[in-house]
Amino acid sequence: MLEELKEQVCKANMLLPKHHLVTFTWGNVSGIDREKQLFVIKPSGVPYEELKPSDMVVMDLEGNKVEGDLNPSTDTPTHAELYRRFPQIGGVVHTHSRWATIWAQAGRDIPAYGTTHADYIYGAVPCVRDLTREEVETAYELETGRVIADHFEQHGINPLHVPCVLARHHGPFAWGKDPEQAVHNAVVLEEVAMMAWHTEVLPAAQQAAPLPDHVKEKHFLRKHGPNAYYGQKR
Amino acid sequence: MLEELKEQVCKANMLLPKHHLVTFTWGNVSGIDREKQLFVIKPSGVPYEELKPSDMVVMDLEGNKVEGDLNPSTDTPTHAELYRRFPQIGGVVHTHSRWATIWAQAGRDIPAYGTTHADYIYGAVPCVRDLTREEVETAYELETGRVIADHFEQHGINPLHVPCVLARHHGPFAWGKDPEQAVHNAVVLEEVAMMAWHTEVLPAAQQAAPLPDHVKEKHFLRKHGPNAYYGQKR
Amino acid sequence: MLEELKEQVCKANMLLPKHHLVTFTWGNVSGIDREKQLFVIKPSGVPYEELKPSDMVVMDLEGNKVEGDLNPSTDTPTHAELYRRFPQIGGVVHTHSRWATIWAQAGRDIPAYGTTHADYIYGAVPCVRDLTREEVETAYELETGRVIADHFEQHGINPLHVPCVLARHHGPFAWGKDPEQAVHNAVVLEEVAMMAWHTEVLPAAQQAAPLPDHVKEKHFLRKHGPNAYYGQKR
Amino acid sequence: MLEELKEQVCKANMLLPKHHLVTFTWGNVSGIDREKQLFVIKPSGVPYEELKPSDMVVMDLEGNKVEGDLNPSTDTPTHAELYRRFPQIGGVVHTHSRWATIWAQAGRDIPAYGTTHADYIYGAVPCVRDLTREEVETAYELETGRVIADHFEQHGINPLHVPCVLARHHGPFAWGKDPEQAVHNAVVLEEVAMMAWHTEVLPAAQQAAPLPDHVKEKHFLRKHGPNAYYGQKR
Repeated sequence: MLEELKEQVCKANMLLPKHHLVTFTWGNVSGIDREKQLFVIKPSGVPYEELKPSDMVVMDLEGNKVEGDLNPSTDTPTHAELYRRFPQIGGVVHTHSRWATIWAQAGRDIPAYGTTHADYIYGAVPCVRDLTREEVETAYELETGRVIADHFEQHGINPLHVPCVLARHHGPFAWGKDPEQAVHNAVVLEEVAMMAWHTEVLPAAQQAAPLPDHVKEKHFLRKHGPNAYYGQKR
Repeated sequence: MLEELKEQVCKANMLLPKHHLVTFTWGNVSGIDREKQLFVIKPSGVPYEELKPSDMVVMDLEGNKVEGDLNPSTDTPTHAELYRRFPQIGGVVHTHSRWATIWAQAGRDIPAYGTTHADYIYGAVPCVRDLTREEVETAYELETGRVIADHFEQHGINPLHVPCVLARHHGPFAWGKDPEQAVHNAVVLEEVAMMAWHTEVLPAAQQAAPLPDHVKEKHFLRKHGPNAYYGQKR
Repeated sequence: MLEELKEQVCKANMLLPKHHLVTFTWGNVSGIDREKQLFVIKPSGVPYEELKPSDMVVMDLEGNKVEGDLNPSTDTPTHAELYRRFPQIGGVVHTHSRWATIWAQAGRDIPAYGTTHADYIYGAVPCVRDLTREEVETAYELETGRVIADHFEQHGINPLHVPCVLARHHGPFAWGKDPEQAVHNAVVLEEVAMMAWHTEVLPAAQQAAPLPDHVKEKHFLRKHGPNAYYGQKR
Repeated sequence: MLEELKEQVCKANMLLPKHHLVTFTWGNVSGIDREKQLFVIKPSGVPYEELKPSDMVVMDLEGNKVEGDLNPSTDTPTHAELYRRFPQIGGVVHTHSRWATIWAQAGRDIPAYGTTHADYIYGAVPCVRDLTREEVETAYELETGRVIADHFEQHGINPLHVPCVLARHHGPFAWGKDPEQAVHNAVVLEEVAMMAWHTEVLPAAQQAAPLPDHVKEKHFLRKHGPNAYYGQKR
């Protein structure tokens, strides 16, 4: 069943190593068929290079396995909760991609510092609260999804305008209209997280002594001046 | 028309992923035929690996499409303004390359810290002002070009001596005598931006405890001393 | 002898460049046969691309070469000590991988900042003390192993729960149930070290001016609004 | 003439892009025949992928071209001076490699923070003084070599024990017994510079809040505990 969606989800999972979002098996993508109310997700712990569409696991929104020989990703209850709470989305991805995870570990929202961010994400990328001990002990992965969806609800954030989030001390989740767009947004998030990090750490004014003027002139002129002597005669 | 220039522009666009200056379709290169007063630019949102010379769009300097089936890059009015105001240049490139964008997001000029910078860029790389709300609402992309050209004019900067600029909170533009040289300068800018960032963040004096002397001696001598025992006998 | 283990150890050594953990020959992996009380280790200074299973050196736990034409890694006495003191482990790896070495050079434990860390390492990665001059001069490589094992013993750390360590001013050691898992843990350590570094250096609150609101709106809407004009008509 | 040395020097130049030490043509390697008192160097501005042994230029130690159709590297007088002053060396390399150049731009020696450094370099990597206006205007490239050699002489540094240096606001030079070893040392310097930079910028003590204990336990146990549910049944 859902053979086309399985192909799509399998392919989207294989985009994760291509875009350098994962080490080993640290990421998973799912996609949903909204009519059938079933979603398809990566099996747990299987390397991307070995993934076949037939390995994908079909789940219903209550968290029951409908089809598949393998165990679904341990993060499946988080995906399910996001599909239940965000009816507009068609694909979800979770990774431990480096730069997004760094912000998650620091417990900080990623401010919108530039147009790269604004092209895809309307406002800051929120970093949601840590789970309580009770939440962790009862239904950790489900509660992870709940904390995310509650945050969006409480802050009136439209998940289509902010298609990603940071689970505090954990890592990013991203989503989109389909599995491929979810991965696309995860790549954007990683790029934006890297640049925001360096935007903040750069001092507000010049720190070091510049190149002396006489060296500045020498170097520019030996390459571009009337008596330039770099390279070969043309 | 302009088949040769289309080839050149297409090829220069394909240099962007090769030099790691772009993610997805986040960059565009154009080139101008100064006699015909027409320029050729990348179509909007088309992946680099699918680009063909025949996809390139031909524009006049007033911003009218002269030839081409596809929409030109959304940044086309910025390119047009730069060609109008900088008559010496033959190619323009815009990207969201990481390190240059970081300085643009921080709103900072890039100081000339070394000869790598001075070999290509005479003085700091300017970061121009943010656009006003009115500029953004009336003709955003055109005004982006205007703010850049005005800055060079007001500060008496020769665009051939400083072949690149940072659009604040946005990203870099670079240019050159032709599309390929424009990309070359964009690569230089990225390299220079990366090194200037780290030049500034490095503390001015030693911070950490050095290796103890007895370990220093041991390691150097076990590899290079008269009784060295690293590696194989020769 | 031990042909299967030699294959395993050779293969695990070749994973080091694949995972970007080594420059030149700066790393070595070993594996032990607990029944025979013999371990197999990389020869010293041989490039990974030239390694063959038959180059591997067989050692006993007292540090005597049992088989092999080449000299074993100079770090062999450290491996031997770790096998003697940690009877639960089956493989050991030492590298100078960048991020773990940075923490070792700074003389700092790596705190557990996120779930990526907690998935593999229970608590901080310890950075053990420098060796004394006497320890360095008498039996440097053996003492390196001793200082590590003593640290785990004194702090009651289970080497299966914390499968890696930082030798101060030197670099990481990691281990596992077999040589491949040791390398797996070395990759995890490197990833965790990179992210912890950036978690600490990121300021605790927003530093730079965000993108102005009117640019934020413009960029999001030109790509996603009802009058979006980015890309091609569909 | 010197066909074997030309092959060696050509090959060593091609190692520069392989080890990611250069952008475009920003680096050059030379090698000397001490008996004939002639050295062979890369031609100026020629891309590495087009280099052939027959393109190499033969120079005498007074700076006269002895053989070759192309102009030698603009840095040739620096190489010549290093060969004159350091009679023990057989190969020289100059690059603008990122991390070494960052330290050169910051005007700082690279302290010996770890054994990776000590395995190849005995003590700090010196950053020599800026050239005066007069030195730049009379014989810039020659004076660059002089300032380096004078520094080693004045500080009693053995160039075989410290096989590299930073030219302030410029970039690194490295050397060795032959061209290949010179490049080897340039790679070591780059690695050591990268790690020293991050050693210094890392704060001396923990900065951020760690992962809460209940999440730490949950994650470790769901993967490694008796009721682990990550991955597939074995």
